[in-house]
Amino acid sequence: MITLTTDFGYRDPFVGVMKGVILGIAPEARIIDITHGISPHDVMEAALTIGESYGYFPGGSIHVVVVDPGVGSGRKPIVVEAGESLFIGPDNGVFSEVYRLNKERAVYHITASHYFLRSPGSTFHGRDVFAPVAAWLSRGTKVENIGKPIEDYASLDIPAPYLKDDILHGEAIHIDRFGNVITNIMASDIKDGPFAVNIKDGTLDIRDYYEEAGDGRPHALINSSGRLEIFVYKGNAAEILNIKRGEAVELKKQ
Amino acid sequence: MITLTTDFGYRDPFVGVMKGVILGIAPEARIIDITHGISPHDVMEAALTIGESYGYFPGGSIHVVVVDPGVGSGRKPIVVEAGESLFIGPDNGVFSEVYRLNKERAVYHITASHYFLRSPGSTFHGRDVFAPVAAWLSRGTKVENIGKPIEDYASLDIPAPYLKDDILHGEAIHIDRFGNVITNIMASDIKDGPFAVNIKDGTLDIRDYYEEAGDGRPHALINSSGRLEIFVYKGNAAEILNIKRGEAVELKKQ
Amino acid sequence: MITLTTDFGYRDPFVGVMKGVILGIAPEARIIDITHGISPHDVMEAALTIGESYGYFPGGSIHVVVVDPGVGSGRKPIVVEAGESLFIGPDNGVFSEVYRLNKERAVYHITASHYFLRSPGSTFHGRDVFAPVAAWLSRGTKVENIGKPIEDYASLDIPAPYLKDDILHGEAIHIDRFGNVITNIMASDIKDGPFAVNIKDGTLDIRDYYEEAGDGRPHALINSSGRLEIFVYKGNAAEILNIKRGEAVELKKQ
Repeated sequence: MITLTTDFGYRDPFVGVMKGVILGIAPEARIIDITHGISPHDVMEAALTIGESYGYFPGGSIHVVVVDPGVGSGRKPIVVEAGESLFIGPDNGVFSEVYRLNKERAVYHITASHYFLRSPGSTFHGRDVFAPVAAWLSRGTKVENIGKPIEDYASLDIPAPYLKDDILHGEAIHIDRFGNVITNIMASDIKDGPFAVNIKDGTLDIRDYYEEAGDGRPHALINSSGRLEIFVYKGNAAEILNIKRGEAVELKKQ
Repeated sequence: MITLTTDFGYRDPFVGVMKGVILGIAPEARIIDITHGISPHDVMEAALTIGESYGYFPGGSIHVVVVDPGVGSGRKPIVVEAGESLFIGPDNGVFSEVYRLNKERAVYHITASHYFLRSPGSTFHGRDVFAPVAAWLSRGTKVENIGKPIEDYASLDIPAPYLKDDILHGEAIHIDRFGNVITNIMASDIKDGPFAVNIKDGTLDIRDYYEEAGDGRPHALINSSGRLEIFVYKGNAAEILNIKRGEAVELKKQ
Repeated sequence: MITLTTDFGYRDPFVGVMKGVILGIAPEARIIDITHGISPHDVMEAALTIGESYGYFPGGSIHVVVVDPGVGSGRKPIVVEAGESLFIGPDNGVFSEVYRLNKERAVYHITASHYFLRSPGSTFHGRDVFAPVAAWLSRGTKVENIGKPIEDYASLDIPAPYLKDDILHGEAIHIDRFGNVITNIMASDIKDGPFAVNIKDGTLDIRDYYEEAGDGRPHALINSSGRLEIFVYKGNAAEILNIKRGEAVELKKQ
């Protein structure tokens, strides 16, 4: 199985063309879209997205992630071997969460250019490099034949919450389709409650599910990724509170 | 075959993750997206969408519909057996059209939690409940093993047209991608014409196809779902006429 | 393999329903989405999209293209045989690039209505005509059984660059998801450089890859389709320069 996560959107044929290349090489491959709606060039969003998602796919899956503003430059194309899965994409930090979650891993610099498509330009490695390498790996080509291991791969500093003056300082790391505000504070940070959540000078309490907070006002809960999330029942919390990614979220014991 | 209809949109990995869960359990499943562009929390739109769509899929298909603002609350997860198909989703009225079109049906409350994914939160039953249940049903698990039949399931009042003073009073029930205005008036309501269509104080005549009305002005036709539809050739009728869902549409014999 | 390219967008169930019809007839078909984000009614955009894409799919693929404002009128439904591939859609110019790239080809008028779905209206030939014909062709039905060859099929004048006073006059033919401006000037037009690119009274130089131009200003490069493309590194060139499709782009030897 091959999954695709990109910032290619849904207007252009980029994703379809990648699938054509994969199926030309590996006609039996199952291809699953994780999302192509990553904000353009947003490596951090892609890193969090694949980090939250890959664990729900069967072992042996090959995860292709193409958010790649440096395409064609010296940034390396890589394959990451972690757990039972392979990850393919640019070496720009897009696999930072995969690294954090898998201390045992190997990263290979893709250099076996005989697997690449010949191309008149260097703007579409999704098609010319990552798709064919994923297809060949799915057919059983060994990762050792794709390139050599490297140690100096790139990793992003994904913001972690920190404790100061008895307050846990976190931040918003994602706004989802519904306007829910996802934070970097985890369920494991909330053990000896009750807690109050402070954001934008307001204080929210923590509920169990959305409908429990049917008063049109913002509340917080622990979501299905185990993250503290700020929401408005049937409303768009990010718009109502004017919250963007990076907004401070504080957790204070009551 | 498993179809998916949700309001999850195309930015987040929700849909991809559901597919990963399904394929982890049922690697041979065919998964088809009906749409993930249902307006957030819009149970009515989802009910109409699956009602218009499921008949075009082969018998034996399993249709998963997740538009579920009450997720995690007491609302029941259900499986509906109707015709040769199964439908899986929340008991919030999302299957109202399926009920209307299938007088013979059985509705089961999903309680067999050993099929569910364990989760740190209760905000994503698409992943934790509906996807695994769909996968197990596609593998041959009997619906009787998923839960017990119930009779008190929820149904929406989907607006039906009514006759008053020789005028058939209908309304707009959907605006499609092209800005075409789909109404709840059916071809069967239009037998002994000619008729005039009144909307927003204007009167439209009924054409056979879009290009027949190449004058830039709004007209009506019977569309391929058998519904009266208001359109502007190569234009956006909903924007031009400022029509939203619920707008009154009257049909008057001429 | 069957590919789909439409202007149906991602809100309505049109695409899902087409897939249901195909799989009801040809359960083993592989269906790949090229894109459903073609601008509504934009036959030119669809023609360029399928022209750039189909070559990346294996021989024997069946490419369905439905951008069809004339649906239901006298415009013919057609099958195009070109190279090893088949193309199915309306005869409105949507295959103009396929014609330009394949001098040897045959075009058939689809008339075998026993393959069509019966429908209450004539607004959705994607579902009622093109999907079932694609499915039957994928199962081995011969194209000669679908209809008779025709010669008077429609073709669009896709703008080609022209030389005048030592300046190559081209134009923007597409704005992609990232705001990159794709032109009709090809790598083969740029042989004996250096060249300067003139657009909107500004002059751009030609780089090799995006990151090479990290100064926030617009530049040009040859993209992976072999086309001259105007970009801003990590920015939206079309917005920054206020460029729309059709904008003049001039290439001048320096």
